[in-house]
Amino acid sequence: MARPKIVLFGDSITQRSFEPGGWGAALTNTFSRKADVIVRGYGGYNTKLALFLLDETFPTNCTKPPVAVTVFFGANDAALLGRNNEQQHVPIAQYKENLLKIVYHIKESIPAVLVVLITPPPVDEVGRIEYARSLYGENAKPPERTNEMAGMYAKTCMEVAAELNVPSINLWSKMQETPDWQKYLCDGLHLTEEGNAVVHGEVVKVLASGGLHAPGMPYDFPHHSQIDFEKPEEAFKKQR
Amino acid sequence: MARPKIVLFGDSITQRSFEPGGWGAALTNTFSRKADVIVRGYGGYNTKLALFLLDETFPTNCTKPPVAVTVFFGANDAALLGRNNEQQHVPIAQYKENLLKIVYHIKESIPAVLVVLITPPPVDEVGRIEYARSLYGENAKPPERTNEMAGMYAKTCMEVAAELNVPSINLWSKMQETPDWQKYLCDGLHLTEEGNAVVHGEVVKVLASGGLHAPGMPYDFPHHSQIDFEKPEEAFKKQR
Repeated sequence: MARPKIVLFGDSITQRSFEPGGWGAALTNTFSRKADVIVRGYGGYNTKLALFLLDETFPTNCTKPPVAVTVFFGANDAALLGRNNEQQHVPIAQYKENLLKIVYHIKESIPAVLVVLITPPPVDEVGRIEYARSLYGENAKPPERTNEMAGMYAKTCMEVAAELNVPSINLWSKMQETPDWQKYLCDGLHLTEEGNAVVHGEVVKVLASGGLHAPGMPYDFPHHSQIDFEKPEEAFKKQR
Repeated sequence: MARPKIVLFGDSITQRSFEPGGWGAALTNTFSRKADVIVRGYGGYNTKLALFLLDETFPTNCTKPPVAVTVFFGANDAALLGRNNEQQHVPIAQYKENLLKIVYHIKESIPAVLVVLITPPPVDEVGRIEYARSLYGENAKPPERTNEMAGMYAKTCMEVAAELNVPSINLWSKMQETPDWQKYLCDGLHLTEEGNAVVHGEVVKVLASGGLHAPGMPYDFPHHSQIDFEKPEEAFKKQR
């Protein structure tokens, strides 16, 4: 039985999801022997750059299209104008339009796919300043992101999800339900192991609601306890 | 640019390679934005069962065949007769024949593929007994594996590699170069994070020798530092 495929599409928070404790690796483990998890994360990319990846990443005539795609952009789009990294900034109206285009493209190329929108996480501005100082000391520039701005992009992402009726994770809000939510971020922006665990838990839940409930999904090949090692062919025949 | 694919084929030591600190997740990270790592690990499987997976896992007419496959079986084949798990035992001559069949099949289906044979790791018999006692107390049965037996299967695996002229990792020997090698095993058999790091390091080295040197491989899409965010189309055009 061919395994279904889940694609993780996003920026550095997706790219780094296979680092120790990462949410991508944890997801692979959750879907062990049941689905393949494919990472398509691009550090530094915003939604404007993501548009250039769509044709190759989600082609129309794919022989084995994914059953689900997480779309996780916005942390870079929300970089402030007039600060370091301002080239990453995407005006909020354009962010919305780009996200709509991304979801449209994926759904048009792969009609049966489950798309999950994930908002950017909150920004810990103090942690961000400390991180910059650890690199540049007195020459550290003012933080290039604010939590308020990330929140506006998160809200926009949720609007897109509502308009298109696709499932979503409001990571910005979810994390801040925890009083010491700053522990989820390692440099004020990227995820700690605890932050990765939050993303993993939320993604597992939303995939399950969308029909990809890992414990209920079949193995591609039988569990060894279901095999008579003397006559293994029977278990493999049954599977087909 | 389509990413090449690396398949990890084996038993539980491969299946569990995306658990925290796992060598499969680390490998995915090593080949970040350059190659996909696909896990095909099956807990409890020996080479006899693995034969039943070959046609579906490595079909002849695959549109996107892997560039490399790690073959990592033997820990279960080496289970002792007359002990717990004896159904997993595969006589050493048959283990050799099965491994030959596995490599032949993969190379015939995918002529350009790099196959890497990995021997079973050593067995820490004391650790194995302690693990059994932690589960069953006084009712724990004698260990179902010995280090000596695992060593014989490792030697046979290396013979197959030499006969077929495929690269290999003698994990059984490599680990025992370290005086306190028992630290590499969590229950006397499966890998700790340190053990996973050894496997990861060895696999990275042998893939590099075979032409898959991660730092020298191209990204599928440009690094953000190579993109003019005002005119991104130029960087993406250049890439093609």
